[in-house]
Amino acid sequence: MGLQYKENFTVPFAMTDVKQEIILSQFISYCLGVSGRQSEAIGRSDLDVFKQYGLVWVVTDYDMTINRLPRYNDTICIVTEAVSYNKFFCYRKFYIYDDKGELLMDLLCYFVLIDFQTRQLSPVPDDLIAPYQSEKVKKMQRAPRYQTLEDPDSKDYRIRYFDIDMNGHVNNSKYLEWMYDALDYTFLLEHRPSHLQLKYVKEVSPGGMITSSVKQDGLRSQHEIWSDGQIHAQAILTWEKRDA
Amino acid sequence: MGLQYKENFTVPFAMTDVKQEIILSQFISYCLGVSGRQSEAIGRSDLDVFKQYGLVWVVTDYDMTINRLPRYNDTICIVTEAVSYNKFFCYRKFYIYDDKGELLMDLLCYFVLIDFQTRQLSPVPDDLIAPYQSEKVKKMQRAPRYQTLEDPDSKDYRIRYFDIDMNGHVNNSKYLEWMYDALDYTFLLEHRPSHLQLKYVKEVSPGGMITSSVKQDGLRSQHEIWSDGQIHAQAILTWEKRDA
Repeated sequence: MGLQYKENFTVPFAMTDVKQEIILSQFISYCLGVSGRQSEAIGRSDLDVFKQYGLVWVVTDYDMTINRLPRYNDTICIVTEAVSYNKFFCYRKFYIYDDKGELLMDLLCYFVLIDFQTRQLSPVPDDLIAPYQSEKVKKMQRAPRYQTLEDPDSKDYRIRYFDIDMNGHVNNSKYLEWMYDALDYTFLLEHRPSHLQLKYVKEVSPGGMITSSVKQDGLRSQHEIWSDGQIHAQAILTWEKRDA
Repeated sequence: MGLQYKENFTVPFAMTDVKQEIILSQFISYCLGVSGRQSEAIGRSDLDVFKQYGLVWVVTDYDMTINRLPRYNDTICIVTEAVSYNKFFCYRKFYIYDDKGELLMDLLCYFVLIDFQTRQLSPVPDDLIAPYQSEKVKKMQRAPRYQTLEDPDSKDYRIRYFDIDMNGHVNNSKYLEWMYDALDYTFLLEHRPSHLQLKYVKEVSPGGMITSSVKQDGLRSQHEIWSDGQIHAQAILTWEKRDA
């Protein structure tokens, strides 16, 4: 197991939805900020990694289990650790606890390092990872394979000015919002997510349109984000019916 | 002058745009959270006001001067006070300082109180306001009059699931995002806002579409949000050309 880092967080109004529950896309983005602060504290800020190694972190996959969603004004505890890594992948976990110490959600993130000059995947340097106390493993933890959807329901979205972040591409968190939005409003009101798997395939550039496609089979929804004839993200969400 | 309250705030990644500058719509929403915490601290939380008076706060207008926009990871100080009130309106100011004490922005908010049962405007009860130490004034501070735009440029937007907040309507912060988005992407990259006036006319319900209309005259842009044949918000933005 890796070096643990934790922060408390009180869920603000702007991070909650019509059900007063946390908006997962925004919260995942917040969690990445928390791991960023751990990295800074041990001398491995994004700037350090760029200056010393010429490398940039990129998230490729999420795998999230949701027992209960935090609500507006709840104070939660976010615990994170970079658990393990192999030649190309680093695995980081986040554990989200309520104020009684009950586990609400856990999130596994897959990261890779990209060489800023060549834009190629880089092997993970051992000394870059050393301060995280992550375990070096041989085995590759595999994200699920996603099948291309046949005959899905689709909605088109114009990319908006505020969808673009300082990296000059659509912010990662927007994909999951488009995936949710492709579902039926009433379905979203009556169900809550219990499991999320999400794969980032390719960045989306400013301007133009994206298509959010969904194929729903009862309590399982499969999603794709398309742009310029290519898949940019894929996800599988599992849902539970809420109590009436 | 009113009782002052202040909080420091470090600008997170998710609250910044492609220029690494704070997203005003989200920041204004955050400021309302700060004033909410002042109200809680003096026994005037939204819940207290609802339980004791049957009243609900509603923002009607913003008037904001922007000398310089805070940037990603800047630590700023937000100072707020409920400066004054008259029979129907309450005026609250926010002052945003950088870490050297320089004033970056100030924001004047107009609030009214609505009777939850009748949905009618309520006179402001003196004892509700007493803890804020606001000055009672006779004169009405007038928000600008907005002219209906003739022959504007318009973009249509489908209302998304995450546009809706726990009040069951489109969140206030979305209007300003739609207004920005109606402008040209290159114009937004090359200019920064120096002044914002915004009026909320009517809430937008879930489902359906809105239209964001703009009429631009050099460094001045006038905006309207339309839905169901009615104006829901109006704004005037003044812009400055950025240094190359």
